[in-house]
Amino acid sequence: MFIDRLIEGIQEKDNPTVVGLDPKMEYIPAFIKDKTFKEYGLNLKGCAEAIIEFNKMIIDAIYDLVPAVKPQLAYYEMYGVDGIYAFDETCKYAKSKGLIIIADGKRNDIGTTAEAYSNAFLGITEIDKQIKQKAFDVDALTVNPYLGEDGIKPFINDCINNEKGIFVLVKTSNKSSGQLQDLVTQNCKSIYEIMAEYVYEWGKPVTGKYGYSSVGAVVGATYPNQAKLLRSIMKKAYILVPGYGAQGGTARDCVNSFQKDRLGAIVNASRSVMCAYKSDIWKNEYNEQKFADASRAEVIRMKNDLNSALNEGLNQK
Amino acid sequence: MFIDRLIEGIQEKDNPTVVGLDPKMEYIPAFIKDKTFKEYGLNLKGCAEAIIEFNKMIIDAIYDLVPAVKPQLAYYEMYGVDGIYAFDETCKYAKSKGLIIIADGKRNDIGTTAEAYSNAFLGITEIDKQIKQKAFDVDALTVNPYLGEDGIKPFINDCINNEKGIFVLVKTSNKSSGQLQDLVTQNCKSIYEIMAEYVYEWGKPVTGKYGYSSVGAVVGATYPNQAKLLRSIMKKAYILVPGYGAQGGTARDCVNSFQKDRLGAIVNASRSVMCAYKSDIWKNEYNEQKFADASRAEVIRMKNDLNSALNEGLNQK
Repeated sequence: MFIDRLIEGIQEKDNPTVVGLDPKMEYIPAFIKDKTFKEYGLNLKGCAEAIIEFNKMIIDAIYDLVPAVKPQLAYYEMYGVDGIYAFDETCKYAKSKGLIIIADGKRNDIGTTAEAYSNAFLGITEIDKQIKQKAFDVDALTVNPYLGEDGIKPFINDCINNEKGIFVLVKTSNKSSGQLQDLVTQNCKSIYEIMAEYVYEWGKPVTGKYGYSSVGAVVGATYPNQAKLLRSIMKKAYILVPGYGAQGGTARDCVNSFQKDRLGAIVNASRSVMCAYKSDIWKNEYNEQKFADASRAEVIRMKNDLNSALNEGLNQK
Repeated sequence: MFIDRLIEGIQEKDNPTVVGLDPKMEYIPAFIKDKTFKEYGLNLKGCAEAIIEFNKMIIDAIYDLVPAVKPQLAYYEMYGVDGIYAFDETCKYAKSKGLIIIADGKRNDIGTTAEAYSNAFLGITEIDKQIKQKAFDVDALTVNPYLGEDGIKPFINDCINNEKGIFVLVKTSNKSSGQLQDLVTQNCKSIYEIMAEYVYEWGKPVTGKYGYSSVGAVVGATYPNQAKLLRSIMKKAYILVPGYGAQGGTARDCVNSFQKDRLGAIVNASRSVMCAYKSDIWKNEYNEQKFADASRAEVIRMKNDLNSALNEGLNQK
């Protein structure tokens, strides 16, 4: 099961962190871009090749420290077909290094169209009756629940059949997430609570040996109080926590998404790791050429930050 | 403005129809697949080339009859990088035939990530300070509002700056759409009503010369009563109507999404057009070799069906 593999990866590396691979051009050191632009041209292909090179160097620097990476599809789609090629190459490379891959696509649709999305990321595409081929080779996908169960079930089928996982948006980290998610229904429940109840139900058929489900949820670190409530509703759900660092969430805020067993959540960091060499913490120690070393240092710093907060916070639970 | 171009396309062709390009392998005649599998192999590339050929023949058969096409991204993503190439080629070909392209991707995210998605479909990707390149060249994109305004505004900025459009999911055509969308808040309003009020507000800055906005909405034909209410809330929104035909919505059901000016909605048909040659209506008249002629016949039948229902229905309004 996906969730068992994820938990074992977290335990093995003693690190509940997923590194977001959101490779904006401005993050990539000039020496990489200069090289790929020279070789492939000042075009989408040149950008895509720079992304591949940058991601590979980040992965090389961190694969022994974190269980998983989370490429954000938007940052690949914006480079067109070449960008999607870069996404695919990144996933293949991450896989070769033993990393679990959570594709952040927030995909959503209904019926056979949801099946097609699930096929793309979590399934196997049928070419012919005998021949099947994987479109992309990832382990889990973020999905959006606006369309209800019709939009979720096809993904869950692939979680069951192919040992994959999903993370359903429940309470997102952004300021305006409340416009819809915080609305309170006539039963005195908020939308995010109702979604959490669905996530709990949907996840039951894919519960693994540690008591967690391959149907997880996204709950932003920027809403620690809501996280506490949601943690209690979705007892079996692994929570993917965005919003640590750059968006203002602290390690202490993240603790609310964990359970007493020290499991239950995985915290994402994207910019703070990819751009560590530009950050106030690391910029004096590492120059652009040493960007990957800065990323490694930041991953270690974050791991210690989270583990300290967990030691402190879980004792108080 | 996008919406003015869409309305002029609808008026010129006297047809408020958008043809969905959802090219499942089972829809594509054997003679096309045999050819591309022979040339490119029994693999994702072979499928992608079959899709391109199939779509081009459909487009050739219908481009003078409809204003717009709506490729559904899921059916391209499921063929990996090659599938995205097929999406891109399809868009380029449709554009060369003067068609408006609505990419059905239901994209959603926040802040700079939403900007990246918008960039991919509605914007221009910056390669370098001087050089910009389009990732994909489409006119509009469907988007999902679960994350609130932070997830919508970046797309609206491109609607303003680049004369593009979006269609925001409000009430989707599927059975379980009510699980979230029909929930009633303590103000006695349903989620779909509240989303419709947002769509109305969000759309104001991009209102065109016919009084409609480039911020449209998706409201399924399968919910005609809700459509009537939503039509009255979102006075300026163009409504993209899925669910006609295969999903059970009738032309009469679609009329509720139009206004008295005969404008305000565009009805999607995917399977009924792409698979017309297999349908009970057309299978005796057209064989597999003539599949595109069957699609053309179905587009004409649907146009007449919608226009009759509009003549009848709008008189009663």
